[in-house]
Amino acid sequence: MGEIAADSSHPRYKSLLLRHRLEKAAKKGMLAASALIAHGRGEAFDYLLGEVTTASALIATQQAAIRLNSAKRPIICLNGNVVALAGKELLLVADALNCPVEVNIFYRTPERMAALLNHLQAIKEKLNLDIEILGANPDAKIPGLEGPRANCTSKGIFSSDVILVPLEDGDRCEALVAMGKFVIVVDLNPLSRSARMGDLTIVDELTRFAENLLTAIGESHTLQDFDNDRFLSDAHNRIVSNATNQ
Amino acid sequence: MGEIAADSSHPRYKSLLLRHRLEKAAKKGMLAASALIAHGRGEAFDYLLGEVTTASALIATQQAAIRLNSAKRPIICLNGNVVALAGKELLLVADALNCPVEVNIFYRTPERMAALLNHLQAIKEKLNLDIEILGANPDAKIPGLEGPRANCTSKGIFSSDVILVPLEDGDRCEALVAMGKFVIVVDLNPLSRSARMGDLTIVDELTRFAENLLTAIGESHTLQDFDNDRFLSDAHNRIVSNATNQ
Repeated sequence: MGEIAADSSHPRYKSLLLRHRLEKAAKKGMLAASALIAHGRGEAFDYLLGEVTTASALIATQQAAIRLNSAKRPIICLNGNVVALAGKELLLVADALNCPVEVNIFYRTPERMAALLNHLQAIKEKLNLDIEILGANPDAKIPGLEGPRANCTSKGIFSSDVILVPLEDGDRCEALVAMGKFVIVVDLNPLSRSARMGDLTIVDELTRFAENLLTAIGESHTLQDFDNDRFLSDAHNRIVSNATNQ
Repeated sequence: MGEIAADSSHPRYKSLLLRHRLEKAAKKGMLAASALIAHGRGEAFDYLLGEVTTASALIATQQAAIRLNSAKRPIICLNGNVVALAGKELLLVADALNCPVEVNIFYRTPERMAALLNHLQAIKEKLNLDIEILGANPDAKIPGLEGPRANCTSKGIFSSDVILVPLEDGDRCEALVAMGKFVIVVDLNPLSRSARMGDLTIVDELTRFAENLLTAIGESHTLQDFDNDRFLSDAHNRIVSNATNQ
């Protein structure tokens, strides 16, 4: 793995690099076992998408930048895979937006929360960023969810108006929509519950999305009406078309 | 996870049960991190296949039963995911065929080999089976492979004529074909290198395949000429058709 990942000419370089990030994160105790399985599902869908950001997904990303830029209380929600794959890029996005991030994980244990918070803190210090990393001390509940997965912070997720939740579970996505928030989802499967539940769905691989979002936040894009179903069907059509022609 | 997996009425019951088996295996040290990612990719393809054994895959499975039944030195090759998902069923197949199994893993470490061999030994004792479990003491090399992944046993994989290698890596699959063996592959992605390399490819989820194989070995099926590309294109067409109609 190590030697393959180091060779950027390898046709699977990017995919192996992401896998390597997850394997390192797993060793640090940042991930649940199901997180790796979820990544594999994503890999298969990205393969079918052609492993590129589609024009449609780029437009959706630009719309996400506009919504986050114009929000009163934007927030970026980070789980284990998100931190492992694009923690750095999303902290840079939060810095550019001047908004907090909140660690919020499905299988919540004190050990995993500590591992994720420490990892983010290290990135923050290295890049000398002035952002708030929430999640250590939840003091509110997301209505409609049960157990530890309902936990959130009152000044973070709970009171946010626009929320970016990449790679999110369908139940939580639905609960956030029910709270009246504008929910921006990133998911490689256009048919997943999260993808269909979100107000704005970017069907793209997370690290490509994060880099594009960082660029788009610094650009000037026009707020447009959009049809989220159209973004989903564009992605679906691409998958069918690629699968048919292989 | 535990409580969901216990409820067989849950629409994702089977999928969650398999995930649970892998998570338990991961905790026992039986799996590399990449094994969970590979399972996730398989899940996505199985979802697109409709999570059922196709008529074409069942015919391929019956052909596998015939080839294994009529082989001089059949063998079943087991890696981490295979042991975790269908170790029991494949030991029963080996018992019915009166053939050995061999543990053979891509990322070979003494700890993982020991965990896998112990797990299989426990199943063997519980079911009171009289089968040989090889792999602990490799004394031969698969030509064309480098490092520990070339290791095999002379009385097992090395001298076999018909080899069942579920969920196998493409390189090893190619190397086994180059040795002149009849290679039977089980893979959910009909476009994978392993699927295209094998002499006979069953595009089906491993536990469904293992149960069907066990049944087919006890039945009388006729040896037929078959076109493996046809099995692959049947699966591919099913995936495209299901994706189109969703």
